Amino acid sequence: MTLRRRDLFAMPAAVLAAPAAATSLSLNEDNSHWFFTRAGQPVTEESVASFVDQYAGTQVRELLLSANSQRTSFASKVWDPIWKGYDPSAPDDQPLFRSTAPEARAGGRKWVHTAWSLAQRGIDPYRLWIARARRHRLSPWISMRMNDLHNVDDPDSFMHSGFWRAHPEYRRVPWRSTGRHTVDWRDRAFDFSHAAVRDYHFRLIEEYCERYDFDGLELDWMRFGFHFRPGRELEGGALLTGFVRRARALLDQWQKRRGHSILLGARVPSRPQTAISLGLDGALWARLGLVQFLTITPFWASIETDLPVELWRRLAGDRVILSAGLELLLRPYHSYSPLQFNTLETVRGAAASLLSRGADRIYLFNYMDSQTAMPDLENYPALLRECGRLDTLAGKPRRHVVTYSDTWAPGEPAASQLPRTLAANEWASFRLHCGPRLGDAKLRLELEDCEIAEIRLNGEMCRPIQGEAAPRPGPARGFHSWQAPPVEGVAVIDLQAARPGRIHWVEIAGV
Amino acid sequence: MTLRRRDLFAMPAAVLAAPAAATSLSLNEDNSHWFFTRAGQPVTEESVASFVDQYAGTQVRELLLSANSQRTSFASKVWDPIWKGYDPSAPDDQPLFRSTAPEARAGGRKWVHTAWSLAQRGIDPYRLWIARARRHRLSPWISMRMNDLHNVDDPDSFMHSGFWRAHPEYRRVPWRSTGRHTVDWRDRAFDFSHAAVRDYHFRLIEEYCERYDFDGLELDWMRFGFHFRPGRELEGGALLTGFVRRARALLDQWQKRRGHSILLGARVPSRPQTAISLGLDGALWARLGLVQFLTITPFWASIETDLPVELWRRLAGDRVILSAGLELLLRPYHSYSPLQFNTLETVRGAAASLLSRGADRIYLFNYMDSQTAMPDLENYPALLRECGRLDTLAGKPRRHVVTYSDTWAPGEPAASQLPRTLAANEWASFRLHCGPRLGDAKLRLELEDCEIAEIRLNGEMCRPIQGEAAPRPGPARGFHSWQAPPVEGVAVIDLQAARPGRIHWVEIAGV
Repeated sequence: MTLRRRDLFAMPAAVLAAPAAATSLSLNEDNSHWFFTRAGQPVTEESVASFVDQYAGTQVRELLLSANSQRTSFASKVWDPIWKGYDPSAPDDQPLFRSTAPEARAGGRKWVHTAWSLAQRGIDPYRLWIARARRHRLSPWISMRMNDLHNVDDPDSFMHSGFWRAHPEYRRVPWRSTGRHTVDWRDRAFDFSHAAVRDYHFRLIEEYCERYDFDGLELDWMRFGFHFRPGRELEGGALLTGFVRRARALLDQWQKRRGHSILLGARVPSRPQTAISLGLDGALWARLGLVQFLTITPFWASIETDLPVELWRRLAGDRVILSAGLELLLRPYHSYSPLQFNTLETVRGAAASLLSRGADRIYLFNYMDSQTAMPDLENYPALLRECGRLDTLAGKPRRHVVTYSDTWAPGEPAASQLPRTLAANEWASFRLHCGPRLGDAKLRLELEDCEIAEIRLNGEMCRPIQGEAAPRPGPARGFHSWQAPPVEGVAVIDLQAARPGRIHWVEIAGV
Repeated sequence: MTLRRRDLFAMPAAVLAAPAAATSLSLNEDNSHWFFTRAGQPVTEESVASFVDQYAGTQVRELLLSANSQRTSFASKVWDPIWKGYDPSAPDDQPLFRSTAPEARAGGRKWVHTAWSLAQRGIDPYRLWIARARRHRLSPWISMRMNDLHNVDDPDSFMHSGFWRAHPEYRRVPWRSTGRHTVDWRDRAFDFSHAAVRDYHFRLIEEYCERYDFDGLELDWMRFGFHFRPGRELEGGALLTGFVRRARALLDQWQKRRGHSILLGARVPSRPQTAISLGLDGALWARLGLVQFLTITPFWASIETDLPVELWRRLAGDRVILSAGLELLLRPYHSYSPLQFNTLETVRGAAASLLSRGADRIYLFNYMDSQTAMPDLENYPALLRECGRLDTLAGKPRRHVVTYSDTWAPGEPAASQLPRTLAANEWASFRLHCGPRLGDAKLRLELEDCEIAEIRLNGEMCRPIQGEAAPRPGPARGFHSWQAPPVEGVAVIDLQAARPGRIHWVEIAGV
């Protein structure tokens, strides 16, 4: 579909509010973390609500409360709540948890039990959090996971809805999604080309609107990002655009009832062509005025430091709040091991780069206050107070790390810069974006065998330095480091191998 | 840079003419082919001009006459003509050809001698071709190669300009571009960040305007596509936007003098992010109204069958003529051998797909009438009469072949779908675009060892068929073939290997 000029003038009123000039953070609280981590604690309405207090006075503007995966963490009347089938008096091997590995049952039960006991007492944590967020001038949102696939390799898992279990014919890749073993979890996603699937999900949207007074509703299409039969995504995408339009129309009605504007958001894949090819045409939804908040993001396997923000802005237009989604993990490439996590310095790097490229928000996913959290959790308060604005990032040490994209449409050729194997005397180039001017820049490589003859940053020679610290995240074998000239924006590293070998990690760090 | 709505209204008058509703072909005649292939033939003004006659009454609309590489094929007063330093009475080992391999000297001399002898007789072939094109209601263009690098591994080659030889300091990667051996030809390209380089090229633009009365001037940035120091492309791109603006302003003046509109065109890399990252922001130039004809194209190594036309249209807008550039070679991936060429059926496939995705033109590069030509040259007249419109392609056999992108910015991760190695029982997906509905579709794979357990097209099972022909281009070992359901637009092939092996070629053929 081609956008014509008339489309630009066919936008609903909600869109005409330009994005706030000041950038800030958006934070996603997932649908299980609080219930797991607060299990067994004495609970009052105040103790529930006070969870939100830690975000008051930070750069967090939107607090996006994820309230469902296949089941809801509240007492839904239209979907199965997480405690459906739970017997609080029975042991951990009760039917609900029987398919769960014995060592995982007690953990799963924590979520279920906490949510169940709140419901028993008539406490709705989402209502409390929304109210507390408003009191702190945070903007409360509900985030709805549109196709969550946790545990689908276990069809009997306590996490699954009756609707999903009852309708294998609604799955995305039906010819590969029966039996206990599956080629790929994503084969078992709902196929949104079925009207029954769309309607089933729309009922939860309606319930959210009725139940909660939020500033915005996010449709999280990135849990898990695959919603159509391979090859049918463009037709599917047209159906989704209709679905998003229906959601926007519903919010238009609720805006009148609530007396304030209600935004619609969407989380979509990180690169425009992939998003379109997966039927998740967020740029079109923004241009049509259907969504007012668009988050571009990898799925989960790694933060994606090189999100093409400028391209999204051109495609999605100036009126949408364009939000750059971070994930907690950090990998230079998919099979890199061991698994590592972002820390304050790598988040600063990603945030500085993405804000300088025009993102209106840095969106934190899986950056929660415990368990699923930064390993340097002592820096969490600083992260919440620094990483949403360039002025608060200025002058602080940051790291720009080459990572990769973890989401591609079926058949789309997938690429990553790393690892890179080099013959003797061979040249290689790497590319990363360093945000605003970075002084005292250090170029760091993880080398296996390889020895570097010459290395340049944007054409300028770099000088080897010794005795640099070995920061985390980082390679167990440590870095080789070079002093680089100051850099701003795009950095291209050109290097020549003196001895053959492999490069596994590339970063530029500085202040 | 972000486009704002006011930009849409700041376009010069030339832009306001919408692209012609009817699609058609554009044909590039390179700057040496005619001179090589007509060498030694008796030449009259009529024999020169009659070269154009073969394109009369075909679907060719723009005839783009390439008139320079580093030297000009006409008697330029501002650049070196190709015959500079040529002594017609001296043998082939005269200084001009001394660095050329002995077996290549006679060939090179043909170009030089033909061009020289025409100039001696006061015949300017470009003037004659432009006039003849007009008589046939073809639209004559001049195409200017902006950074041609043929033979730069031989710094003394007859093809090089004195300016290039005299200024190694103006090269793109100066630290790698001295000596007879170079890492990459593209290191020796001019670096357009130097004002002297831009001015030198602008002088030829001025001469073209003065010398020839054309309908359009094309800036061919894809010979060879690399114009800035690695890492400096975005700053460079801003300078190029200024350069393109200056060219458009010059054409505005000449429009008044000539009394007709003169379009500005550009050839840029095939994918938007790569184009931007190389400083070739054709979409911006189109949005700003600086170019009216935008050709997206691979460099040379293979036709790129999956040009993202829809994305370009969104970025570049509706007012530009969006032209999909074909090359003559066809490779499934870069190291595939032997080298093969497109034939009528593969061009039909690419053209049908690209036109159905919204291209206004199919642009033929290296599809000339001899030598650099389709191997099935007997089909050239048909190609010129069929491949510019969907209605003339309808009902004719065509082949859609998976290829790859041959141009990436430095450090940009490069990907291709093929070759694909598969373990036993492993699944793989491939993606290609098949244009309008394709009936009697055959799915063809080149397999090495691999045996296929199951294969589906957009989810539908395909049935093996025997005894299919082994068409060219195609693998020497032949294809394995399956009968596929009818397909339209995107096709995703899902297959599972029964035995491990490799897949080298994927295509869908049909009528």
